[in-house]
Amino acid sequence: MEKLHSDIKSVRILICLLVQKGIKEIVLSPGSRNAPLLVSVAREKRLKHHVIVDERSAAFFALGIAQQTGQTVALICTSGTALLNYSPAVAEAYYQGIPLLVISADRPSEWIDQDDSQTIQQQGTLCNFVKKSFQLPTVITCNEDRWHTNRLVNEAINLSQHGRKGPVHINVPLREPLYDFQHESITSERVIKTLKESPSLTAEISQNLREEFFLCPKVMIIAGFHEPDPVLQQHIKLLASLPNVIILTESVTNLSIPLVISTIDRVISTIQPEETETYAPELLITFGGSIVSRMIKAFIREHPPRTHWHIDERPTPPDTYKSMTLHVPMDAPTFFDQLQPAEIKANSLPSSYAHQWHQREEKAVQIHDNYLKCIPWCDLKAFSMLIPALPAGSRLQLGNSTPIRYAQLFRYTQVDRTDANRGTSGIDGCTSTAMGAASTFNGITTLIVGDNSFLYDSNALWIKNCSPSLRIIVIQNGGGGIFRFLAGPSGLEEVEEYFETPHDVDIERFAGVHRFKVYRATDAPSLESVLSEFYQPGQQPAILVVHTPGKINGEILKGYFQALKD
Amino acid sequence: MEKLHSDIKSVRILICLLVQKGIKEIVLSPGSRNAPLLVSVAREKRLKHHVIVDERSAAFFALGIAQQTGQTVALICTSGTALLNYSPAVAEAYYQGIPLLVISADRPSEWIDQDDSQTIQQQGTLCNFVKKSFQLPTVITCNEDRWHTNRLVNEAINLSQHGRKGPVHINVPLREPLYDFQHESITSERVIKTLKESPSLTAEISQNLREEFFLCPKVMIIAGFHEPDPVLQQHIKLLASLPNVIILTESVTNLSIPLVISTIDRVISTIQPEETETYAPELLITFGGSIVSRMIKAFIREHPPRTHWHIDERPTPPDTYKSMTLHVPMDAPTFFDQLQPAEIKANSLPSSYAHQWHQREEKAVQIHDNYLKCIPWCDLKAFSMLIPALPAGSRLQLGNSTPIRYAQLFRYTQVDRTDANRGTSGIDGCTSTAMGAASTFNGITTLIVGDNSFLYDSNALWIKNCSPSLRIIVIQNGGGGIFRFLAGPSGLEEVEEYFETPHDVDIERFAGVHRFKVYRATDAPSLESVLSEFYQPGQQPAILVVHTPGKINGEILKGYFQALKD
Repeated sequence: MEKLHSDIKSVRILICLLVQKGIKEIVLSPGSRNAPLLVSVAREKRLKHHVIVDERSAAFFALGIAQQTGQTVALICTSGTALLNYSPAVAEAYYQGIPLLVISADRPSEWIDQDDSQTIQQQGTLCNFVKKSFQLPTVITCNEDRWHTNRLVNEAINLSQHGRKGPVHINVPLREPLYDFQHESITSERVIKTLKESPSLTAEISQNLREEFFLCPKVMIIAGFHEPDPVLQQHIKLLASLPNVIILTESVTNLSIPLVISTIDRVISTIQPEETETYAPELLITFGGSIVSRMIKAFIREHPPRTHWHIDERPTPPDTYKSMTLHVPMDAPTFFDQLQPAEIKANSLPSSYAHQWHQREEKAVQIHDNYLKCIPWCDLKAFSMLIPALPAGSRLQLGNSTPIRYAQLFRYTQVDRTDANRGTSGIDGCTSTAMGAASTFNGITTLIVGDNSFLYDSNALWIKNCSPSLRIIVIQNGGGGIFRFLAGPSGLEEVEEYFETPHDVDIERFAGVHRFKVYRATDAPSLESVLSEFYQPGQQPAILVVHTPGKINGEILKGYFQALKD
Repeated sequence: MEKLHSDIKSVRILICLLVQKGIKEIVLSPGSRNAPLLVSVAREKRLKHHVIVDERSAAFFALGIAQQTGQTVALICTSGTALLNYSPAVAEAYYQGIPLLVISADRPSEWIDQDDSQTIQQQGTLCNFVKKSFQLPTVITCNEDRWHTNRLVNEAINLSQHGRKGPVHINVPLREPLYDFQHESITSERVIKTLKESPSLTAEISQNLREEFFLCPKVMIIAGFHEPDPVLQQHIKLLASLPNVIILTESVTNLSIPLVISTIDRVISTIQPEETETYAPELLITFGGSIVSRMIKAFIREHPPRTHWHIDERPTPPDTYKSMTLHVPMDAPTFFDQLQPAEIKANSLPSSYAHQWHQREEKAVQIHDNYLKCIPWCDLKAFSMLIPALPAGSRLQLGNSTPIRYAQLFRYTQVDRTDANRGTSGIDGCTSTAMGAASTFNGITTLIVGDNSFLYDSNALWIKNCSPSLRIIVIQNGGGGIFRFLAGPSGLEEVEEYFETPHDVDIERFAGVHRFKVYRATDAPSLESVLSEFYQPGQQPAILVVHTPGKINGEILKGYFQALKD
């Protein structure tokens, strides 16, 4: 049996994806460092290749092919100045809008600039003339590396064809031995397809997606942060009514629809290991920004769907769930509009999927309500009073990281919109952001923020002309309570000093200095009594400091999730 | 009279465009280097501003406003770490997709890293978290600088709203004195609008553009390089029939339409200075890649149209004519499809514009024919025989820089498509590109290339399995003949040795070594007699070396344009 492809895993993934992504032509230039690539391509019958020694000539030859066909043409060269000889043609391709996939073998990173032969800085050298530069891992030691490599190669090939076409660069560091080959053939890699960025879904694509949708008995839609959008709201509402569809949202998704599950963690917690098959989707559709719920990310990563469409305007979108198979480069309202949910509904087939999720949600609500009845004063208790008290038609800003997590355990629909800085999820700047947001809105804007986060951004209170309709609620629980909940730090003796970092700043006096009206709650009755006055309109912004017992918050929250699991 | 804005020109342009581009809110942080900006904003009644000292807080405040409104919010800070304090909120904005316009004052470039105070590297420091970084010129000494500054500010604001929104950065180097202000108010700057990158033109926008089009008596469409496209061909053909529309194309535009002017230079040359008003457009529409014709670029730059729509998928498209007023971020076929030319035709008004251009074209054809009759053997004569001899249905590749310029003096429609490496317009790689192109096409591919360009890429002949239907025509005129035509070098005594660089390589023997079938022409009769055999199908690719007298080519071409002018 012939030894076919290199035994280097990154090379095998790359070659496999060249075949599966339909790269038709490859121009090879000889070398030693790129031997694993050369030999693998040469032995792969499904790839057509040309051998051209002078890399400058090779790249212009590839350009000629791609110019005439519009298809992405791959180039493979060895390490060193070989890559630089590609650069004139790569620049020409960039300005002409021609798709090339430049693959350069490289020394492993530890040897770069070490005056060994051919150890020049290759990474990023074409950056002015490629749409993006990618660097593959040197060795693949685990599934994380495999995923990374698979994703980068998919991204690179897709990007060459995205919008205005153009060249992309993949730099491939390779460690010796270079000349070992395997009997085993390359098998199959996950392919991430991308729709051509175009004015609209073609009738054919739209029809295919619809069919896949209504034929699938288990469709899950997970939505991250998104501004309120009436078009999106309308389409999601219709899809939420289908028997094969379950929709999971977050507080910052800003979709208020009865049949949507907006308390992901509380419902997911009730799913037992043996039940996962029932609840895992076959088709996953995702849109919006990053997801707060760690549980749903873990659930999907452990039970990857057969098909995953991700709707995202960005040319190289995140593969959060490690399962993306189709990237739709559009904004979500346009996509769902063109998917024509009414057509899907008209073809809807029976399925028990949505029903099963809704039953589970009901169960979660019962456990939630029962648990809340028997807990002492704590963060969770405070949120159970704060969230229902948010005025109708007001806006909500949630701080990182505990406030948004607590808020998502409660279903609420009365607010106009909810935001949180989940782009980077930092604790910095939540108060300033809320100040800016409040300055644009006549109604009430409430910020719920932890004490450390509030103090970190205390200069926000220095901002002049603060909107009198801003209401800040500081959860004063003695610092970063999250660390007493997380498995890692909570067991360390350093948890208090180095993680929780309790402070001795008197937040109430501090806020008074900045001419905020100050309220205080130290238990359920005092919170109850203060809330209605806190939300009264007035000439001043107001701050409410809610004192909770930091030491027990973590335990109570752990107990909450344990109760849901049991 | 109050002294209003700073007297620093870049600041005046920036402030003016903030107003004109509809920036509603600006968050200012105090400083000295940014004093010209601060004072100008503070005194500008049309801008709403907030003063926030801590830049970290200021940027998050701006983020809050932009998050709620979706509008681009500007931030202005001083030099040094002020900008770095913006970075957490800028990163948050980047990942949340929120539009911010970060404006940082900076020391002038000569002082960066010189250990004076606040002289850190600001340029590019946010590059991982902004869509693009822009650097304004330190001083504005001429109209080129003014254009550059105007364009960069327009680009930055447009980019913040393009596709998925996000932050952009403008770094503004400012030299002392910083505290001088002018009585003169800021007046008006060119605004480059951009349509929101969206699935399609909205009905309203489409209707507005159409009305502007059919109400305008003088519409010019200039098309750069573009692959052949049947949809585009059909729409341009319809527009070419309108009385108020003239369409100028190049050989590499790949539109073969009777009423289109494909020989721009030869027609433009006939326009006398006093006639320019008649021929200059009021509405200019451009699409496709870079333009070969220097004459049309100069003509438009000297007579800028009232309105200029540029159709380009790229987020920051080139402003080649310095006159862009509207950027349509779409591909050209989609744009013209959605513009609905049939609707424009239905509303067409009388105009003599197209007629006047066509009359001028006829005149140019007469002068051209007469001139060609009385010139001796030379490059121009050779092209007058080579171009008509291109086989019907074949493909053409043109080298840089003289071959494509000569070819564009002739009208031809028989070829299937024409390409040239006009992305960067280098002389490198034309032959390799043609080899690649020929490998994808069963019919004949002809490359016409100069001798220096051919030798530069001589390794192309080393490529194995060259398509037998490739035909290379080398214009052997003793080197870079272009330099005897250009006003600058042609007068220098160094023109031969340092510009023209004549060689003594026997191209015919060289090509024979690489197993090309070799043909030779040294005058009109020998070229005439060799052409039909040259294009006979065969087992080998063929090369035809056309020898012309290098010393007189430039003079004859100058005479040609003089004849057109007279």
